[in-house]
Amino acid sequence: MGSRIPAQRQLAQVLGVNRSTVVTALEELQAEGLIEGKQGRGTRVANNTWTLMAATPLPDWNAYIKAGMYKPNLTTIQEINQAEINTDIIRLGTGELSPQLYPKNKMQRVLMSLSDRLESLGYEQPKGLLALREELRRYFKSIGINTSPSSILIVSGALQALQLISVGLLHQGSTIFLEKPSYPYSLQIFQSAGMKLFGLPMDENGLKPEAVHWHQKQGKRGILYTIPSFHNPTGMLMSEQRREELLLTCEKEQLPIIEDDIYRELWIDAPTPKPLKAADKNGLVLYLGSLSKSLSPGLRIGWIVGPEPVIERLADIKMQTDYGASSLSQWAAAEWLSSGLYYSYLEEVRQQLRIRREVTITALEKYFKDIASWQVPKGGFYIWLKIIPDISMKKLFEQALSEGILLNPGNIYNQNIDQYIRLSYSYASLSDIEKGICLLSEIVKELALQ
Amino acid sequence: MGSRIPAQRQLAQVLGVNRSTVVTALEELQAEGLIEGKQGRGTRVANNTWTLMAATPLPDWNAYIKAGMYKPNLTTIQEINQAEINTDIIRLGTGELSPQLYPKNKMQRVLMSLSDRLESLGYEQPKGLLALREELRRYFKSIGINTSPSSILIVSGALQALQLISVGLLHQGSTIFLEKPSYPYSLQIFQSAGMKLFGLPMDENGLKPEAVHWHQKQGKRGILYTIPSFHNPTGMLMSEQRREELLLTCEKEQLPIIEDDIYRELWIDAPTPKPLKAADKNGLVLYLGSLSKSLSPGLRIGWIVGPEPVIERLADIKMQTDYGASSLSQWAAAEWLSSGLYYSYLEEVRQQLRIRREVTITALEKYFKDIASWQVPKGGFYIWLKIIPDISMKKLFEQALSEGILLNPGNIYNQNIDQYIRLSYSYASLSDIEKGICLLSEIVKELALQ
Repeated sequence: MGSRIPAQRQLAQVLGVNRSTVVTALEELQAEGLIEGKQGRGTRVANNTWTLMAATPLPDWNAYIKAGMYKPNLTTIQEINQAEINTDIIRLGTGELSPQLYPKNKMQRVLMSLSDRLESLGYEQPKGLLALREELRRYFKSIGINTSPSSILIVSGALQALQLISVGLLHQGSTIFLEKPSYPYSLQIFQSAGMKLFGLPMDENGLKPEAVHWHQKQGKRGILYTIPSFHNPTGMLMSEQRREELLLTCEKEQLPIIEDDIYRELWIDAPTPKPLKAADKNGLVLYLGSLSKSLSPGLRIGWIVGPEPVIERLADIKMQTDYGASSLSQWAAAEWLSSGLYYSYLEEVRQQLRIRREVTITALEKYFKDIASWQVPKGGFYIWLKIIPDISMKKLFEQALSEGILLNPGNIYNQNIDQYIRLSYSYASLSDIEKGICLLSEIVKELALQ
Repeated sequence: MGSRIPAQRQLAQVLGVNRSTVVTALEELQAEGLIEGKQGRGTRVANNTWTLMAATPLPDWNAYIKAGMYKPNLTTIQEINQAEINTDIIRLGTGELSPQLYPKNKMQRVLMSLSDRLESLGYEQPKGLLALREELRRYFKSIGINTSPSSILIVSGALQALQLISVGLLHQGSTIFLEKPSYPYSLQIFQSAGMKLFGLPMDENGLKPEAVHWHQKQGKRGILYTIPSFHNPTGMLMSEQRREELLLTCEKEQLPIIEDDIYRELWIDAPTPKPLKAADKNGLVLYLGSLSKSLSPGLRIGWIVGPEPVIERLADIKMQTDYGASSLSQWAAAEWLSSGLYYSYLEEVRQQLRIRREVTITALEKYFKDIASWQVPKGGFYIWLKIIPDISMKKLFEQALSEGILLNPGNIYNQNIDQYIRLSYSYASLSDIEKGICLLSEIVKELALQ
């Protein structure tokens, strides 16, 4: 008790760490009340340390944490979230545009113009900033969707849209039909609310709708979730014909559709076919989009288009959840659209993605020729890499992580398969992509020998 | 079918509305496919109208809406949310700073500085932007809370904090102890998740903790929710002694506390007493704060401080819910704090609130002397106005609304009482406050005669 702690410089030397690390550690100890620093008298162990250490926190927080109904994230996802904090890591799985593609000048123009125009920054209407919904209505028209601002809800990204749908429209025991593999398998949104995922097979044209008939027999109110354009994680593009077939099947089965179209604007080879929503005469489709993939995840701006009573319901829950998306972000999004900057920026992004895809495919051809197979995606971020040697993806993930490469193993999108990884060409720098793929191929080969 | 619709100007004249209203209505009809406009040929009823009208939307959305587990907002809250869209209305109940107090110049400086500094705008760490958590740590120190950035979670406002706590730490059947009346009675957050609210009485020093013993007998894992500083809706300030007693009682009962301190910085007469969290040696208190009341609800930035495992758990759910708060808003918040602009701005706001409170009290003394009673709040936004004549608050709400005044009737904060309204001096302009209170007194007197 009360004994003096060595000087920061000494500690740094002895422990072989930076002085700034020592400072942070001491600050944490001081914040916890375990040590105290006095002017000119150095840092000492606090006199009440024993009491502090002895007193277990009174409430049994662990019991509370276990009691909470929401499931924790998958362990792999938690590990990925943690690893992303390390800025030195090469992120070969990250489904996000590279910070190098951040449109700094255009964002500056948007923020300047905003700061002139804003006369207040309060809560917005339950469905979101009207000016943004008006801009979106215009955008939707350009992709074949005729709607009105009252049928649009602004959300904080498409993930929140799924959250709102799960607690607002579905019930315990509802079935979510979806591609297998698919992004929602990596989430607990539906499972936490007591719903079941029912995976449907895909072929080269996308999700095969035949199995949806199964739904009819169940007689339950379910919903179909699909990512028709540049599917996550496979990168697949659903053909126009398949889109028609899928819509027809779901109409026949009276099965509503969640169309998650967040990658739509990221086409590389040819403009994306019209969304299912464009042919939806009966209000079957809830259409989701977002600026997160195409512009900036940091804005946290997405949208849902659907029949007005459904939008009213979801808006009401959105209000109860967080009183709406950031108004600052909503104004910025509206400005990006109304100024036209968003559309000129998208052309640049497509150019960059084309280059990134080429560099990635070239590296794969060089290093993965005999140890993996893949399709060249027509847009989006992802290559669904099938590893040929019989190795554990968990081991690959961990070995790669220890060598500074962060991957998204395929089994988070389908727990039944263990031979895929989701490779993304959107995030890492071009040189890191090459370096990372080279290193990764060596790890695969090493593991294959074990 | 196909018949021509009269020109917009004619329609406006015949219907006695603005031409812009006609344009909007026609646009909606066109969006729905019911009419079609052709260049130089006017607007016509679409040929497929009959098919469209005849086809009932296939999926039974109403059944979906009813099946969703989340309860809809209280009818009164929905009405308030709707009425707020009308910008002409005098909002005497709104718990939000007036747009007139929007610090345009300071916000401009913040946004300019931001747009220079931002080099990317991606997802932030699960607990939120580190720079913001560092700034908050400094701020917390100034109010007596020693903590570290790893024990802080950034959320999209304090309402979302409650949402995360309800699904992350509580379970069906958990009891939420709280002041009666209190803000959460106006929400469905806890009720939608199957929890019960258990109201505790208040006296002039705040919540009376004696009844908490009841919890012991129940043997269930509950939590206590309190707004000790400038309580919503009563405006009450919990005394220092009562804060100590409450903390002691909860320690004894092993009952965790949610301390909702979002009005803390809005003191008028004297600085707010230290939060309960400042004396919390055992990690009993989850401390909530926000910029929504003190600076701007449009940023959607709030925070939770608590034991690290609890913060980890809530951060994990936050990631699953919406991938974090708007990065743009988080950077703006960090800039407000680090530049010191927030603190100089707060001094101005306190001045303005003092003036607003005075104008309101003066108007009440003039118009409500014999028909209501009230306490003068020491800070925050609210006056808990007790109406003396025996009239229905529902009628008062509706009559006031029809005369252009929006109120928050007290029974949304405690369904068992029907003689209060929550008056707010934060939102309406000074002249509207006077005008509104005068008009309101007339309505009360009229209703009392019926």
